Amino acid sequence: MSRSVGFIGLGIMGRAMARRLVDAKHQVTVYNRDASKAKELVAAGAKQAETPRAAAEGNDVIISMVSDSAAVGNVLLGPDGAVHGTKTGAVIVDMSTINPGSARRIGVALRGRGVAFLDAPVTGMEVRAREGTLSILVGGEKKDLDKVRDVLSVLGNNITHFGKQGAGQLAKACNQILCAVNMMGIVEALHLARLGGLDPAQLVEALVPGAGGSWALERFGPQIAKGDFEPGGRIALMLKDLGIIEDTARELGLPLSGVIAAKRYFQDNKAHDEADLGTQAMYKAVERAIEKAKGRRSLSS
Amino acid sequence: MSRSVGFIGLGIMGRAMARRLVDAKHQVTVYNRDASKAKELVAAGAKQAETPRAAAEGNDVIISMVSDSAAVGNVLLGPDGAVHGTKTGAVIVDMSTINPGSARRIGVALRGRGVAFLDAPVTGMEVRAREGTLSILVGGEKKDLDKVRDVLSVLGNNITHFGKQGAGQLAKACNQILCAVNMMGIVEALHLARLGGLDPAQLVEALVPGAGGSWALERFGPQIAKGDFEPGGRIALMLKDLGIIEDTARELGLPLSGVIAAKRYFQDNKAHDEADLGTQAMYKAVERAIEKAKGRRSLSS
Repeated sequence: MSRSVGFIGLGIMGRAMARRLVDAKHQVTVYNRDASKAKELVAAGAKQAETPRAAAEGNDVIISMVSDSAAVGNVLLGPDGAVHGTKTGAVIVDMSTINPGSARRIGVALRGRGVAFLDAPVTGMEVRAREGTLSILVGGEKKDLDKVRDVLSVLGNNITHFGKQGAGQLAKACNQILCAVNMMGIVEALHLARLGGLDPAQLVEALVPGAGGSWALERFGPQIAKGDFEPGGRIALMLKDLGIIEDTARELGLPLSGVIAAKRYFQDNKAHDEADLGTQAMYKAVERAIEKAKGRRSLSS
Repeated sequence: MSRSVGFIGLGIMGRAMARRLVDAKHQVTVYNRDASKAKELVAAGAKQAETPRAAAEGNDVIISMVSDSAAVGNVLLGPDGAVHGTKTGAVIVDMSTINPGSARRIGVALRGRGVAFLDAPVTGMEVRAREGTLSILVGGEKKDLDKVRDVLSVLGNNITHFGKQGAGQLAKACNQILCAVNMMGIVEALHLARLGGLDPAQLVEALVPGAGGSWALERFGPQIAKGDFEPGGRIALMLKDLGIIEDTARELGLPLSGVIAAKRYFQDNKAHDEADLGTQAMYKAVERAIEKAKGRRSLSS
């Protein structure tokens, strides 16, 4: 059944996701602050709105996919926010990655105005957004998820309802811990290999099927071996996510040695203008740590 | 072609590997310090030797699979060591996990007596040892590997020659970095999930197929969710491996924040009599870190 969908936020992920909805013959109205990003989607059949409110008007489902809590608050609850255009019975689904606490607060504000809200961040990056094979991590009322499941199924093949509002964002935070900390193991292992004279590409191939194997080793290992640091997932976004993790962990009383060590490397990347590289560029931060350690040794000798 | 194989060291891994060689109709002579461990193998058709030297005598291939560098040195080069029984043209293959530097030194000593030597540690744990699907990471002369490839193929389906002596052990060290550091991400993520009220089993299922997914998450995540800390791989062995990694990294000038943070957790396990639990019991070390942090907060409030 064709549904009417408002889609707010046309970054790399948002564009890929909105495009799938258009191609699945849903009636899609898109909004993006920089309107030029909508061109391809309009050519493919989407309508374009001039405000988030207008993108929401008359639609069954409104999806937001923007950069952070402030942007979500703005496009949903701001003066031109979606909430002002949402019809009775519609569901707003925020698929951005934000703090679980922010998701709860936005949910309370929306329900105060009679609007249903789900937090539903995704994992899988652009390639899986295009294929419609994202994992979608959902918090909020199950009955609201049931109302939009057909639309979300176009975007992801692995939809999990984790519980009450914020639970989807909390699950996403857990995923980002896995990604950040595992990346640290990958880059430290590849430097040990390099310094010890192994062929890193051969090492990755040998270790992927074993107990040290991971999606990230398979995906990023060969890129690192070639010196390819193009994003996949940008370090700037990972640092935002690590901030969310730290805030959430602090509230819950959880000390996180692994996360802290990974964050330190990524902050070194940022300090060296590498925030727009992919997370695998943590390899470059470890390289600098090696150089620094060399400096200390030659000073002390 | 049936080959004659001496097999030294019948721990959990060694027994599973020797058994595959017996079942593949090779003529296997086994040695273990505690001779009782050989019973099942003898019943299956192996001969039993009373010394490593006797296990080596007349055989084409001699495999050692023991606990550490000292044990390898002892069973290969000691007074009753395999080297004294090795026939011309035979190859000694050490499949234990030891320091790359030790492997090089043992190789030099053996070649000094005219004996070919490969370092060939494995990844995959007992289950894959039984299936013959280990990954075998080889250092040493390629011509020596070619002489024993048929025998190693019974044990592993993924044999990689990394280069000169010690290169196999270095590759294994890289694998252990991946395992130790990734485990830290897994246990920190699962504690965040628990404290935030998520179902850990549901979380693992949702995240395994995504960018945070790994063999270890799939294997150990459900065990941790059930509170099952039985080994797989014991913490005591992982701590030995982390010592190897630190020594090797120090020689090569590589600072390793992730490895250090992971080791600290495992050392806490050891201090709490958990060295014989599986590596996933790092979860219990993080639990204690949470309790400690709680104590600090209530003191300061």
